[in-house]
Amino acid sequence: MGGTWEALAAKKRQDLLNSIPEDWRIPSHLLPPASQNDITGFPETSGWFTREELDITNSTALELLPRLASGSLKSETVTRAFCKRAAAAHQLVNCLSETCFDRAIETAKALDQRLANGLGPVGSFHGLPISLKDNFHLRGLDSTVGFTSFVGDPAQDDAELANLLIKAGAVVYVKTNVPTAMMIAESVNNTFGRTVNPRNRQLTSGGSSGGESALITFKGSPLGVGTDIGGSLRIPAACTGIFTLRPSFGRFPTLGCRSGLPGQEAVQSVNGPMTRSLFDLEYYCKAIVNFEPWHGDPRCLPIPWRRVTLPSKLKIAVLWHDGMVLPTPPVTRALRQTAEKLRAAGHELLDWSSEDHDLGTQLLGRMFVADGGKSVFRELGKTGEPLRPEMADYGEARELGGFEYWQLHLERIQFQKRYLDRWKKAGIDAILAPVTPFSSVENGKFKHVGYTGVYNVLDYAAMAFPTGITVDQAVDVLQDDAPQPLSDLDQVIRSEYNAEAVHGMPINLQLVAQRLEEEKCIEMCKVIIKALN
Amino acid sequence: MGGTWEALAAKKRQDLLNSIPEDWRIPSHLLPPASQNDITGFPETSGWFTREELDITNSTALELLPRLASGSLKSETVTRAFCKRAAAAHQLVNCLSETCFDRAIETAKALDQRLANGLGPVGSFHGLPISLKDNFHLRGLDSTVGFTSFVGDPAQDDAELANLLIKAGAVVYVKTNVPTAMMIAESVNNTFGRTVNPRNRQLTSGGSSGGESALITFKGSPLGVGTDIGGSLRIPAACTGIFTLRPSFGRFPTLGCRSGLPGQEAVQSVNGPMTRSLFDLEYYCKAIVNFEPWHGDPRCLPIPWRRVTLPSKLKIAVLWHDGMVLPTPPVTRALRQTAEKLRAAGHELLDWSSEDHDLGTQLLGRMFVADGGKSVFRELGKTGEPLRPEMADYGEARELGGFEYWQLHLERIQFQKRYLDRWKKAGIDAILAPVTPFSSVENGKFKHVGYTGVYNVLDYAAMAFPTGITVDQAVDVLQDDAPQPLSDLDQVIRSEYNAEAVHGMPINLQLVAQRLEEEKCIEMCKVIIKALN
Repeated sequence: MGGTWEALAAKKRQDLLNSIPEDWRIPSHLLPPASQNDITGFPETSGWFTREELDITNSTALELLPRLASGSLKSETVTRAFCKRAAAAHQLVNCLSETCFDRAIETAKALDQRLANGLGPVGSFHGLPISLKDNFHLRGLDSTVGFTSFVGDPAQDDAELANLLIKAGAVVYVKTNVPTAMMIAESVNNTFGRTVNPRNRQLTSGGSSGGESALITFKGSPLGVGTDIGGSLRIPAACTGIFTLRPSFGRFPTLGCRSGLPGQEAVQSVNGPMTRSLFDLEYYCKAIVNFEPWHGDPRCLPIPWRRVTLPSKLKIAVLWHDGMVLPTPPVTRALRQTAEKLRAAGHELLDWSSEDHDLGTQLLGRMFVADGGKSVFRELGKTGEPLRPEMADYGEARELGGFEYWQLHLERIQFQKRYLDRWKKAGIDAILAPVTPFSSVENGKFKHVGYTGVYNVLDYAAMAFPTGITVDQAVDVLQDDAPQPLSDLDQVIRSEYNAEAVHGMPINLQLVAQRLEEEKCIEMCKVIIKALN
Repeated sequence: MGGTWEALAAKKRQDLLNSIPEDWRIPSHLLPPASQNDITGFPETSGWFTREELDITNSTALELLPRLASGSLKSETVTRAFCKRAAAAHQLVNCLSETCFDRAIETAKALDQRLANGLGPVGSFHGLPISLKDNFHLRGLDSTVGFTSFVGDPAQDDAELANLLIKAGAVVYVKTNVPTAMMIAESVNNTFGRTVNPRNRQLTSGGSSGGESALITFKGSPLGVGTDIGGSLRIPAACTGIFTLRPSFGRFPTLGCRSGLPGQEAVQSVNGPMTRSLFDLEYYCKAIVNFEPWHGDPRCLPIPWRRVTLPSKLKIAVLWHDGMVLPTPPVTRALRQTAEKLRAAGHELLDWSSEDHDLGTQLLGRMFVADGGKSVFRELGKTGEPLRPEMADYGEARELGGFEYWQLHLERIQFQKRYLDRWKKAGIDAILAPVTPFSSVENGKFKHVGYTGVYNVLDYAAMAFPTGITVDQAVDVLQDDAPQPLSDLDQVIRSEYNAEAVHGMPINLQLVAQRLEEEKCIEMCKVIIKALN
């Protein structure tokens, strides 16, 4: 097995497990059986966590931060609690890719000492553990993004965003699993294997930020940062029922991260927070922008965090389907109920046409493989690692020449212009849409990133948020009088739909604002959440 | 000659001349001899212009606008005066590519009627003629950008920026000449031939916005709009001694313009004003941003026009040379004198290293030909038009594949990051630099766009401004003890330097602010102009 990719992967997985101290390894007699689907109750029911550990890890970031800043709660205590719960999460759903527990505890102690010395908190995240997706470089840790070729190639520096967080007092302690190259909508790769959904291990936690979504859902992290180039924040948030914001490019720093498709710019990867609380999410966004990241990342925009006053009556367009794939029954039901509640709350709702969504989705696909898959195959080739079947498109891709590449840009601009004109003509504030056709779906069965990817091509601010509505297998059945499938893909998805499998899963929706309207998107999300409650 | 490119070009030139009404054709007995270099005095000395026409066309935009808005000056009168002077300019320096005099006068009359009806001015540019570079689409007019293939292919719509200007009351009346594909730093092409400098017709007015610079310098336009992807605003402004601002991408709308390299995005083309007055320039920029162009152009940034308060003491780095080509003696003298006056005015001056400028310049060149020259040859091929010798690089280019293209992006980001870090570490407010090695230069001898192009790759806000210093052939001689040439190109430029040829020409410098610091750049330019006076 010497230098084979399998050996590299096996050793990496073992090293990761070995990085978990004995104290944080779940005693075998407490391990839930493999057949147990929902393991979110494990921390409370196993007896393996102290009351203090539970209280801390059950808290939101905004509950912890004032206590950390005042010193009434020690960062070391909080950090140890989250390290332990993150370690447990990994043992149950395989959500981590790297740990730096020692660094974290050292950092936490130094922060505590600072407070003890009367120097006050260092910044907006004083003492708070924050988890990062695998592709954020952290000094001394790998960023494999799933490739065995990157095993044992530790980063020299922290990513720009990590650096900002650390300067503001955040404690970095784990990085989370992703799919190969971050280009699959589930989190599975040849190095670490598959992350599964803590609410139901038969289901996916989504991808590519699916290690994050699983960890946060298990409360192994109060707040994490993922990335999104086609839905990679929103899909995992939706699959697990948490909040996320995909910002427009330039709002948060992206420098110093490993890309799955390095140098690809026709559509830009962005990063954003993933949280269980909308207020945590808002706090994070405001803090990051207030750091003025444009001084360190040449592609960040000098746009301060802006106060937004919403019209009392929002005009919201509903995208019932994207013309390619119908949402599965629970998603359509959540969309309908949300629209009804918004209308009842006095907002104006209208139907949004799916025109051009097929083109937007197709443009995205062409952008991803414009290098003919060379970036992916370069990494695979280094160790002989096979292409994953989910990435067959990369094996079939034809490399564009520079001239064709330029024509692709022109098509994208025309698409962006038509969509903007349509938005302005309708005078809408937002689009309410599915995030994916699914609430979540059985591992290996996720399909279709069109609902999210269109907004990457447009670079619009977009959130995924939990509606509070959950799948009910008694209600969310395919109707006999359902409309004809919109496509072959739609037919496959429909035939695979299994209400029983997803029973009880939370249902997220997507809220889309205009480009660089992150503040407005968050404010509108508050309005929707309020209307839903 | 039927369908040959020469015939297409000849007919186009004749059509352009024919579009000038008899009344605005310079009587042959008044035409200055071809040997007369400086023809800027023609309007005053020929007796062919009325006092009113001279008074109007000698005015700045800010002098005209209040009178136009109040109705004390009719737009029709102003428009006719500028049409006539622009027509004269064309006959003397070949600076136009298109005219729409009838449309202009109709527009002006309608604006006058509006005021007469008591409806008030329509917007910030009520009644003011504004000239546009050839590549701004205007309904019914060609936008050949110098290619014979685009002759007789009139635009269906106005460019987004033209549309904003027109809605705000501007009167469009002429478009101005450019080099082929706008990719030569002088304004020469196979369709319209060469635009020359009205201050000295032996010299170039620069390029690619060299029709604009010539027209504005001759006062055939109070305010024009050009574009810049490697120096195309700043070089012609410098060659003629006027003001311009190259904004960062996203500040002003670029949609609906003809590109010389359509779809090329590794470095973005931008547009900006060209004026004889800094206050006109500022007025224009503020007005355009206040139109909130992001509602119509999906790539515009929602950044309002911001009030800037400068530190009382600016920290300005001086780029004495770029490590590739030394400025010619007058430019170095202007730079030295400007730095001395700024120091005397209490500002902090320091030397700026040219490190990475060669890389930045090389990156720019690689971006321009990443399609292997296909975009240019596609147009040339349609009519059999030959490649201009100035564009030999396009003939030798090798098309990049998508994968290599991505690597080029990565190199650019690293370059941008190093430059930003250097800027922040030095804590500077601005860089003061040459615009080009030349004040101006004899037609056909312009070389080296490195001084400007680096800031396109960086996307920094940059102005070219006249120092008020002019070339003095008695002073601006090459010294015997001059440093060794920095390169073969430097040697050629030095051997071609002819102080006598450029005697009396104005000398511009470049002022560079950070990305998206347009407001600050303008404020700092005011400070410099004040220190120079």
